Amino acid sequence: MNKQLLLRKRPEGLPSSDTWELVESPIPGPKEGEVLFKILYVSLDPAMRGWMNDVRSYIPPVGIGEVMRAGTIGEVIASNNSKIKVGDYYSGWGGVQSFTTSNGEGWFKVDPKLAPLPTFIGTLGMPGFTAYFGLLDVGKPKAGETVLVSGAAGAVGSIVGQIAKIKGCRVVGIAGGPEKCQYLKEELGYDEVIDYKNEDIKDAIKSTCKEGIDIYFDNVGGEILNAALTRLNKRARVVICGAISQYNSTTNVEGPSNYLSLLVSRSRMEGFVILDYVSQFGQAAVEIGGWIANGEIKSKEQIVEGIENFHDTFLRLFNGNKKGKLILKIL
Amino acid sequence: MNKQLLLRKRPEGLPSSDTWELVESPIPGPKEGEVLFKILYVSLDPAMRGWMNDVRSYIPPVGIGEVMRAGTIGEVIASNNSKIKVGDYYSGWGGVQSFTTSNGEGWFKVDPKLAPLPTFIGTLGMPGFTAYFGLLDVGKPKAGETVLVSGAAGAVGSIVGQIAKIKGCRVVGIAGGPEKCQYLKEELGYDEVIDYKNEDIKDAIKSTCKEGIDIYFDNVGGEILNAALTRLNKRARVVICGAISQYNSTTNVEGPSNYLSLLVSRSRMEGFVILDYVSQFGQAAVEIGGWIANGEIKSKEQIVEGIENFHDTFLRLFNGNKKGKLILKIL
Repeated sequence: MNKQLLLRKRPEGLPSSDTWELVESPIPGPKEGEVLFKILYVSLDPAMRGWMNDVRSYIPPVGIGEVMRAGTIGEVIASNNSKIKVGDYYSGWGGVQSFTTSNGEGWFKVDPKLAPLPTFIGTLGMPGFTAYFGLLDVGKPKAGETVLVSGAAGAVGSIVGQIAKIKGCRVVGIAGGPEKCQYLKEELGYDEVIDYKNEDIKDAIKSTCKEGIDIYFDNVGGEILNAALTRLNKRARVVICGAISQYNSTTNVEGPSNYLSLLVSRSRMEGFVILDYVSQFGQAAVEIGGWIANGEIKSKEQIVEGIENFHDTFLRLFNGNKKGKLILKIL
Repeated sequence: MNKQLLLRKRPEGLPSSDTWELVESPIPGPKEGEVLFKILYVSLDPAMRGWMNDVRSYIPPVGIGEVMRAGTIGEVIASNNSKIKVGDYYSGWGGVQSFTTSNGEGWFKVDPKLAPLPTFIGTLGMPGFTAYFGLLDVGKPKAGETVLVSGAAGAVGSIVGQIAKIKGCRVVGIAGGPEKCQYLKEELGYDEVIDYKNEDIKDAIKSTCKEGIDIYFDNVGGEILNAALTRLNKRARVVICGAISQYNSTTNVEGPSNYLSLLVSRSRMEGFVILDYVSQFGQAAVEIGGWIANGEIKSKEQIVEGIENFHDTFLRLFNGNKKGKLILKIL
């Protein structure tokens, strides 16, 4: 049978256990031109929370009763498509379920000889590409600049910091708790770290970014974004990648009251959507793959087994109980 | 005697009549290399409110007991500087007073045969240059795009809209009250206007910017900025020029809670400071002067007489009781 996680209601705030329902249905048969994927790994991303809201955004919301949208790695187990071979692995929007059919559109072949499969939905997938294009194309780092990253131990943030180091920047990471901070400094080579759970964020930014901030890569929003704005150097870039602290807010999103610092410092705050870069994913994968190969980028995945653990695992995206890329393995 | 307006205290919120004190002192004599300016016109700008706060900004605050900083037009009435001739007119930071001495540094000669003197602190001065570089260099308009301007009947906004029209854009202006709106539409050629005092700002932006906003030039901040963010087109530019609605706030500045629209629309919000463009003022003056000469730009100044009327006139910057550039004439 195909186990499928369907969206049952639109949550107010943090999703609860009845937000989704796990159902079973017959395994679908691939039509002419289609293949059947067995889904092996499901990517868990903070952005998924946004897709559950019924608002105008960069992609349509997941419909009530639909399979929860997610990036996945699938194995081809049946094929009516001459271009896609049984036994090959693909990355694509498979959703939170154990099987899916597709004509292959939007799926990319991945090679388990080049990297472990989960990496293709992590550092060699959407989060890695988000870090790569967000930092390089929007942030435009120059050697010697100070790059501040929030959510620094996360799937995106941990790669942002490492690419910034490769580009010759001084990198300061913000994460929650001493363990993550130690990981950033000792394993990923961050120059300085801020434990936002145990430090005053304003003071800590001031003392770790003594020469100001040239790039602030924001994954969290809220108070941390607001504090970072007060320390911008001239012509700084604030890259708006996400706002984890706000995604489950039941009141208005907290706007950055210090936004006029953009004027004083002649800076810009800019958003981006990784889907715009699809045509350049190949190039990014080659470059990131090279950095992984030569040890300049360390990639960490945290893998939880079992589709029935989706809800609890999803919440770990927001309560900070994870390090690196969070992945659900479908058994 | 030299009448001088000194800053006596830092206001909380709107300045009151005891924020400044008008004093008299002997007319200073120019030292070797200096000239004596008789100040004819004083520019009144919302930015002056910011200079009164004791905070880190793009220029130091005006000190307590110092002459209030202001852009001015002065006539040279005595000269110990061979390069500056008696009878010539200059634009510079003369401050709110009737006389000042200077070695001429930072003062620019202006020619009353080319334009009326007040225009050199209006459309051919800081407000005009602010509109010119803010729109063209930060906003980067393309023909056919929709440009939304707040504070549209003000010294900066009215020029932004007219330059945007010259560049082939569709221009929507936001101003307070039917008289200003009529002025924008009938005299300045705005395509659409929004009277924020009598219309729901969100609905009005939706109905006047049916195809979305490509550039939002913000002079006001607050609720209007927040509403504009919800209607951005892909890769829109939000130019942060000022935030009149917030300058006299006694609580925290209101941050734009819709800032995540920057992400969804892949847009940027960028600040600038006109002082960075000083070396290009000449070029801007030539081009704006040409537009005034051929009737493509209309320049409006509202001139109030008497330094003793400074306080009441200054407040008109914030209560909206003015049109175009507000200037104090020193008698």
